[in-house]
Amino acid sequence: MNSIKLYNPGPINVSDDTYQAMSNAMIGHRGSDFVNLYSDIHPKLQKLFGTTSPVYLSTSSAWGVMEASVRNLSSKKVLNCCNGAFSDKWLDVSKRCGLEAESLSSEWGSPIDPNELDEKLSTGHFDLVTLVHNETSTGVMNPLKEISQVVAKYDDISLVVDTVSSFSVVPINTDELGIDVVLTGSQKALALPPGLALFTVSEKALKKAESTPNRGYYFDFLEFHKNWEKMMTPSTPCISLIYGLQHQLNKIFDEGLDARFQRHEELNKMVHDWVSKNGFNHFAPEGYRSKSLTCVANNREIDVAAWIKRMRDKHSLIINGGYGKIKGTTFRISNMGDESVDSINQMLEAITDTLS
Amino acid sequence: MNSIKLYNPGPINVSDDTYQAMSNAMIGHRGSDFVNLYSDIHPKLQKLFGTTSPVYLSTSSAWGVMEASVRNLSSKKVLNCCNGAFSDKWLDVSKRCGLEAESLSSEWGSPIDPNELDEKLSTGHFDLVTLVHNETSTGVMNPLKEISQVVAKYDDISLVVDTVSSFSVVPINTDELGIDVVLTGSQKALALPPGLALFTVSEKALKKAESTPNRGYYFDFLEFHKNWEKMMTPSTPCISLIYGLQHQLNKIFDEGLDARFQRHEELNKMVHDWVSKNGFNHFAPEGYRSKSLTCVANNREIDVAAWIKRMRDKHSLIINGGYGKIKGTTFRISNMGDESVDSINQMLEAITDTLS
Repeated sequence: MNSIKLYNPGPINVSDDTYQAMSNAMIGHRGSDFVNLYSDIHPKLQKLFGTTSPVYLSTSSAWGVMEASVRNLSSKKVLNCCNGAFSDKWLDVSKRCGLEAESLSSEWGSPIDPNELDEKLSTGHFDLVTLVHNETSTGVMNPLKEISQVVAKYDDISLVVDTVSSFSVVPINTDELGIDVVLTGSQKALALPPGLALFTVSEKALKKAESTPNRGYYFDFLEFHKNWEKMMTPSTPCISLIYGLQHQLNKIFDEGLDARFQRHEELNKMVHDWVSKNGFNHFAPEGYRSKSLTCVANNREIDVAAWIKRMRDKHSLIINGGYGKIKGTTFRISNMGDESVDSINQMLEAITDTLS
Repeated sequence: MNSIKLYNPGPINVSDDTYQAMSNAMIGHRGSDFVNLYSDIHPKLQKLFGTTSPVYLSTSSAWGVMEASVRNLSSKKVLNCCNGAFSDKWLDVSKRCGLEAESLSSEWGSPIDPNELDEKLSTGHFDLVTLVHNETSTGVMNPLKEISQVVAKYDDISLVVDTVSSFSVVPINTDELGIDVVLTGSQKALALPPGLALFTVSEKALKKAESTPNRGYYFDFLEFHKNWEKMMTPSTPCISLIYGLQHQLNKIFDEGLDARFQRHEELNKMVHDWVSKNGFNHFAPEGYRSKSLTCVANNREIDVAAWIKRMRDKHSLIINGGYGKIKGTTFRISNMGDESVDSINQMLEAITDTLS
């Protein structure tokens, strides 16, 4: 049995108590057992999403809902904010759905500029903006509030935000910011195995979906809503993951949201301190750095792959050696999920020990 | 903790040893740990599918792949063979994807007629046929061989077969029958929690997908294939379910395929004997009855819902009270998965005990 602790930014470590919860006896998905389960977790999910709108459960990875968002909400042109591997790919996915799509790009490592966004939107060409809040590939956290305020100026333009690696690490105030769709996945800070995506859709966006043709079935927002009204899902859901989610939500609210955000901030700072102390630079600029993971510039030009092999062999843990075109020139360390001061300390000691 | 044993036709009971396997420590999906996992299960999956083509893993329910099949393989017109709730719905899903689609219908409870299919296909209107092999709603097993032989006469028409509730219960000879896509889900006879779909695509169908526009990303067959070449998946896969699948496949091949098919045949016969002995009729005609579940006509006009409540309260198990428009006028008993002569006997005793 494999037992390497994961400090790459997702999938992350899953605790034994979570696996235990996932092993609850199977239930049917069209009866009261499932309705009770969904009803129990729904108010907690609304709090985490900062919304009074429905929160839907999609049996897919987050990419499914990212694709769904463009399929459900654009019949004119999508503007994909691109500044990393995942946001760049969203542009490609939009085009593969047969949609008109264009990018608003910043360099990898730089945030999206709200003023440039405003300029683009003022052309009147677009009906949808996609944003990756926390670019897991670069460690950049985009300025969500400023970006939301820009999009809010345009009544006919919807905003979809991927919070895959920021959800439950920093507050996401969906309603306050007027975001139309917020989506996330199970395998990041929620510390569940992959296979479940969560999302919320504003009433306005649901209305818009009604007039969007060819939404299909599996990812049709209206189908999710119709089933949500009965506290069910359109297709057979990943029930064991939802049991796990119930357990993790209980842990999150037992800890308290503020304490949880504070803990992630503190653990993140420990990693940041390690970066300075060891003579590395950050890949993301000050003020735009993720609280869930740290993307480190490999200015010391170490052999990252060999280093990761050493920490794996000697300490049974790994960090990540960089993603896509910045593989090797960066590396990434996650502080998401159920981690503590102790576990992050142990990890930092292990990676220091094997650094040279 | 819930502990009602499920004899409804899916999701079905998941064994403790399977949950244990699902609790293996989490791994990254872009490294050698995942490649090793996928490489280990792939030859066994090919044997179960009766194919030398790739077997892909989709993080979704089977409906995702059912939708994917029409999106990837039709640019002319789909013929959906309709004789139950799930096959009827496939027609609706095809239309929701913006495709031209028409049904070849039989009454619920009757099989699809290969001669009628031949007549339809000879019009030259169609490029894709969809078939639900084992209609879980009616207990009808359609004549797969005869239907495959009809479609094989037409070189430009692809055949997609949903084997959701027949897979690993009866042999599926994909290559021998020349079927283009065979798909199934995890929560039926494989006795895993829901959330994972498995499918195989012929080389000819992959070629056809290349020229089909707007396939999107999440369910793009070519994207599955490109990642399969590295023993990976397009999006983050449901890793814990794949660990569970590895475990179940080992159990399946330890038992032996012939012994497994034989066991399901025997357990199914036990249920059939119970049907006759208790004065009920079958909903499906002789010769077309599923080996994984039995759909019973409620000719005794019992109050099915009340009966199921009694068996749940007294014996902590349930069967299913009928699906869709035949709810209450039929009921369904599953013999899928890890069940044994003993467990089926206990179940039959319990439902007899609470019958009146």
